[in-house]
Amino acid sequence: MIALDWGTSSLRAFRLARDGVILAQRAAPKGILAVPPGGFEAVLRETAGDWLAADPTAPLLLSGMVGSRQGWIEVPYAEAPADAAALLAKAVRHSLSDGRQAVFLPGVSCQRGDVPDVMRGEETQIIGALALAGLADGTVCTPGTHSKWVTVAGGAIRAFATFMTGELFAVLRDHSLLGRGFPRAADGSFETAPADLAAEGFRRGVAHAFADPALLRSLFSTRTLGLFDRLPAVALPDYLSGLLIGAEIAAALPEGGNRDIPVIATAGLADRYRLALAQRGYTARLIAGEDAAAAGLAAFAALLPEGTPA
Amino acid sequence: MIALDWGTSSLRAFRLARDGVILAQRAAPKGILAVPPGGFEAVLRETAGDWLAADPTAPLLLSGMVGSRQGWIEVPYAEAPADAAALLAKAVRHSLSDGRQAVFLPGVSCQRGDVPDVMRGEETQIIGALALAGLADGTVCTPGTHSKWVTVAGGAIRAFATFMTGELFAVLRDHSLLGRGFPRAADGSFETAPADLAAEGFRRGVAHAFADPALLRSLFSTRTLGLFDRLPAVALPDYLSGLLIGAEIAAALPEGGNRDIPVIATAGLADRYRLALAQRGYTARLIAGEDAAAAGLAAFAALLPEGTPA
Repeated sequence: MIALDWGTSSLRAFRLARDGVILAQRAAPKGILAVPPGGFEAVLRETAGDWLAADPTAPLLLSGMVGSRQGWIEVPYAEAPADAAALLAKAVRHSLSDGRQAVFLPGVSCQRGDVPDVMRGEETQIIGALALAGLADGTVCTPGTHSKWVTVAGGAIRAFATFMTGELFAVLRDHSLLGRGFPRAADGSFETAPADLAAEGFRRGVAHAFADPALLRSLFSTRTLGLFDRLPAVALPDYLSGLLIGAEIAAALPEGGNRDIPVIATAGLADRYRLALAQRGYTARLIAGEDAAAAGLAAFAALLPEGTPA
Repeated sequence: MIALDWGTSSLRAFRLARDGVILAQRAAPKGILAVPPGGFEAVLRETAGDWLAADPTAPLLLSGMVGSRQGWIEVPYAEAPADAAALLAKAVRHSLSDGRQAVFLPGVSCQRGDVPDVMRGEETQIIGALALAGLADGTVCTPGTHSKWVTVAGGAIRAFATFMTGELFAVLRDHSLLGRGFPRAADGSFETAPADLAAEGFRRGVAHAFADPALLRSLFSTRTLGLFDRLPAVALPDYLSGLLIGAEIAAALPEGGNRDIPVIATAGLADRYRLALAQRGYTARLIAGEDAAAAGLAAFAALLPEGTPA
């Protein structure tokens, strides 16, 4: 099988055996925002053309923002609850220029009170993480620009919520009064705190977020702690990161759910969530994002009719 | 008396009678960020030089960010609780080039849990609002870039909290994914919704903030409501404004305090707070910012020794 996790800013292609073993993988900075109009098939062939030629009947699966309105083929969201089979049932087939079928997986939508929520790409990681962790029920977290907290039951995505944690950190650092207090190096980049100070800043941010759940009110402490020299300015970015991740975790953690939370992320970010969860008495089961995506794509492929191209 | 409310982005000068009646006032876009190094006295004389010359023994009072580290003379914060007399006792006298004394009022600091908070300029408006409203106890709100919610008892500022509501709205509109979904006119400015749609968007934002107190989670609904055509895109900025102001009010409103909240702001902003407070069953007592500042400066002046220049 040839499978792509094709997001907003990056593209990851996998060549997978039927049993899900990764035979090869490639990454490219060719997220959908970097693809010119009408250029999706060309990028696919640049990235995986040799794999497609070598195995002309292998199923071709695509997941992520490539199936959004801004992507290649718009695939309507599948409504939660949805397990892997339900998602695959909502996939959209599209013929490439040579007649080969590509299967575009849907994102997932849910309704939370009076507002909808959506994910696109994370559902594949969630399905994969459940397979890797041997879980069918519980809460799973995918930290990032827009973190998702997902409730899973019986192997199906039941409900979830998006937290704009990573994006809010970036806009506050780059465009607010708070970021203007962060020291910069001569080249304009933000200074990095020594490891012990960074850890201390992060820990205190998490602790304050747990003590005051109202983020609009807690944010300003990033400024006042600097103003009163209660925290070295170089540790203020870590403090702000702790405030935001702490606020996310305080709001998202289920009452009485699993105490061991699968966290699907790159190493550095996953570590921040591990530390913040530990301050709340939880453990994190770290799963690399690409491993989760590959396992999820393999799980979908296993549901395709054996021996027939999708 | 000659008194200045000199903030970050603007300057307002008042000529006041001893009884607080405003004889004349002038505003200039000469906030402290617009003053060149060493240029404060020149800006003072440009703005109020004729008043100073006409009344050489009148007390001269200055309030606001002009007393900050980035201002003219740094005045240390007075620690809460502090009433008008306590604040005046912490004022710093500074001689102008002609020997005239200028009295720089302090800001106020307080400790909330493990973090400090500060205000500078709002304390004068608070003191003035209490005088105008005939109040000595209760909760007062000064909405804005950094909103303050202030608890007053016995005429003294006891405790307060800063909410970065206005600044967060601006950075999310101008620099986040949410703002990229706000329609723009041909000249690049954001489109304004018709009054009924704007009101509907704002009301729904406030309602959702009251339903979900976690702002990090509620923010993304600004995008999904547009994505699913549940709210016309032109009303999304009002929805975001409602989300933020609603989150502020939900976190700030005291349990069992006054149901009639003095709100010190310009007309348009005050009206948003009036509407949001009404959704929670509260009323707003609107007080114009310049009236509150003038009344506060007059209250301080009344405490100065009669007949002697400060």
